[in-house]
Amino acid sequence: INADEPEQINAFLNSINPADTALAVSRLNSAEQSRLLTLLRPEEAAEVIEDISDTQAADLIEELPPEQAAAILEELDSDHIADLLGELDQDDANAIIEQMDPEEAEEARQFLTYAADTAGGLMLSEYLDFRGDQRVQDVLDDLQENREDYAYYDVQYLYVTDDENRLRGVLRMRDLLFPKRTEKLSNLMISSPHKVSVDASLEDLRNFFEEHALFGVPVVNDDEKLLGIVLPEAVEEANQKQSTQQFLGLSGIIGGEEFRSMPLLARSGRRLSWLSLNIVLNIIAASVIALYQDTLSAAIALAVFLPMVSDMSGCSGNQAVAVSMRELSLGLVRPTELLRVLGKEASVGVINGLALGVLLGAVAYLWKGSPFLGLVVGGALAVNTIVAVSLGGAIPLLLKRAKLDPALVSSPLLTTVTDMCGFFFVLSFAALVLDKL
Amino acid sequence: INADEPEQINAFLNSINPADTALAVSRLNSAEQSRLLTLLRPEEAAEVIEDISDTQAADLIEELPPEQAAAILEELDSDHIADLLGELDQDDANAIIEQMDPEEAEEARQFLTYAADTAGGLMLSEYLDFRGDQRVQDVLDDLQENREDYAYYDVQYLYVTDDENRLRGVLRMRDLLFPKRTEKLSNLMISSPHKVSVDASLEDLRNFFEEHALFGVPVVNDDEKLLGIVLPEAVEEANQKQSTQQFLGLSGIIGGEEFRSMPLLARSGRRLSWLSLNIVLNIIAASVIALYQDTLSAAIALAVFLPMVSDMSGCSGNQAVAVSMRELSLGLVRPTELLRVLGKEASVGVINGLALGVLLGAVAYLWKGSPFLGLVVGGALAVNTIVAVSLGGAIPLLLKRAKLDPALVSSPLLTTVTDMCGFFFVLSFAALVLDKL
Repeated sequence: INADEPEQINAFLNSINPADTALAVSRLNSAEQSRLLTLLRPEEAAEVIEDISDTQAADLIEELPPEQAAAILEELDSDHIADLLGELDQDDANAIIEQMDPEEAEEARQFLTYAADTAGGLMLSEYLDFRGDQRVQDVLDDLQENREDYAYYDVQYLYVTDDENRLRGVLRMRDLLFPKRTEKLSNLMISSPHKVSVDASLEDLRNFFEEHALFGVPVVNDDEKLLGIVLPEAVEEANQKQSTQQFLGLSGIIGGEEFRSMPLLARSGRRLSWLSLNIVLNIIAASVIALYQDTLSAAIALAVFLPMVSDMSGCSGNQAVAVSMRELSLGLVRPTELLRVLGKEASVGVINGLALGVLLGAVAYLWKGSPFLGLVVGGALAVNTIVAVSLGGAIPLLLKRAKLDPALVSSPLLTTVTDMCGFFFVLSFAALVLDKL
Repeated sequence: INADEPEQINAFLNSINPADTALAVSRLNSAEQSRLLTLLRPEEAAEVIEDISDTQAADLIEELPPEQAAAILEELDSDHIADLLGELDQDDANAIIEQMDPEEAEEARQFLTYAADTAGGLMLSEYLDFRGDQRVQDVLDDLQENREDYAYYDVQYLYVTDDENRLRGVLRMRDLLFPKRTEKLSNLMISSPHKVSVDASLEDLRNFFEEHALFGVPVVNDDEKLLGIVLPEAVEEANQKQSTQQFLGLSGIIGGEEFRSMPLLARSGRRLSWLSLNIVLNIIAASVIALYQDTLSAAIALAVFLPMVSDMSGCSGNQAVAVSMRELSLGLVRPTELLRVLGKEASVGVINGLALGVLLGAVAYLWKGSPFLGLVVGGALAVNTIVAVSLGGAIPLLLKRAKLDPALVSSPLLTTVTDMCGFFFVLSFAALVLDKL
């Protein structure tokens, strides 16, 4: 396919759906990927870029000469351009912007100043605005005339602005169906429409669209000037991206997404950064065992149960972390409601701690025939489960209050503490009854 | 607030946004929640129901007398009704359906037969359909006349059907703007429109909306009869729900969502079901240590490193699991591409295994001054990391091929195997050089 046959490639790409395009592109090595984009016309290349994830697209764009990258970017919508440029480093982004059409370059520069997960970062500049003294017929004429340009707009509303571009009102497309064609927009529009500020957060936007079932909301700056529109899809997408980051973060992949098409060393490095931190946490936890070496060699059977107790409590704690994170993200719990969460989780901890402790204690007793081993192991698991579940429920709230990301930090922090406590409970309980083990 | 003052409650609920409603409702105990719904008028209660999650809503509905539940449900849209009834047990659902208006009951019964994550389960019955020989003026008249009913419809398209309700064409709202009012719909409509089958999967629908930027797609049965429409929002929502399930499943909460407002025993039980399985897996893994007790008591320092090696490899493996799951869900890897994934992951495993092995080996050497201890511990971690990363990459693909849910099973399966292997490598390597430790 890669034998310099742009026609064939394009026919092929058009014949498959976006998911398959992404699959096909990720199968090429990076030299082939650049060749592919070079062979295609900018608008075709832009379609490929739209089908793959932003991280992959930014990697590709980076490899292209700036003029070519600029030509491709100009085919994308304003929100997407800003996302891609935001993923590049400053110099690459500037080099590309300089090659863009001056008007689009100005806009791109402007869009880059907005933080990614705010209304500014999510908005589109593709909207329709008219003046209040224009008539229905003027609008219809304009729509007819610019039919082709507007075909790419995702438009449900018309915005009405004044001479200084301040937002005055809004009209739904279908509001044009019924009135007389000589009516002025200012008489038809809904004045003082819903709007959001350019620095509204993702959470604000999510709440807005939950409350108002609208197909878009205008974004204004402090002077009420209309800057763009945010569509609910963009908010959904940003949400989705946030939960993906959360998922990858929980699994210990920090600093962005990983795809297997990325270079080996980059993938190793990204994963190692988290693993090296984890090794330090592990050393801290294991040092508890080192302190109790004598106890352990006197009752070597305990060594079997050390990893079990710490692992089981870790699992119990992580369940509580998951519930807290979910309730935080749904707004069902506030970061300040620490006592309420501690109470609720401690009760679960007591029940599950007793159940698991009895179970593991029985296993230990049956295995070695020693009731004291059973008591030590079962007791340690029960106490450590209560600690783990209560902590697990509380940690995400505490991190949120400390403005840290609970998704990244909760689980390793919890695991380290529960490991330490688990080792400590097993070994210190054992030390108390050492002569009977 | 709960002092029998429906007016005040309603005013209060209207004054706060949906997220706060959810928060407020989840703070009440279940008796108060039922009282709340009983005090409100059905349409007000329906609004509360819309603001809270389906799981919470179903719990609430279950507590109400069937007539009252039916009255509330009738205020919701068809998709939502089916979702809620689907969460109830069969008997409760039937009792409620019997109390509903016969027409709505028939529809609800029909909707319940569709699987949740298919086009049938996601579709709405609220759409507009007309006959091909109707004229633009007829449609405009109908829209005017039924203005109020349609206000709740989320309508961008008009569907054209024949006498047997077979889908013939589609029109966009704005297509009514330009033509003459006497034109027949059959001359304006796009014939052979996009459509999906009633049993299209969530993945099919996601691909469809990725490929076609439409505001909805008609759902037809095998005879091409129009049954409903699926909106992209419904697909997004189902997607979001799926990834939430995945997130909770990964953290060991199976069998649905957990909220702290649920009864204590239900919460404990749900978590215990997974923990009891985990305890069995842990016992299997720890039995390896039991086999090597003699080695361990001869070199007790190893006990410090056992949990570290198994834990570190578990983390490395879970990173690979996360990347595989992400690539599977984006369609960037197929379940059959096992060798490719194994190759890619093994390379990362070798690099990270060496890096971590050298690090932990050095720590062991520095601590005890024994080069052999360093070699045993470092070597075991290196080998086990390679095993864990390769397995971690492969397991989600294997589970997918075996039609099991990778989100639920990958992580525990991986951890058990890497624990076993980790213990085995440390202790068997140690057994080889036992006299030198």
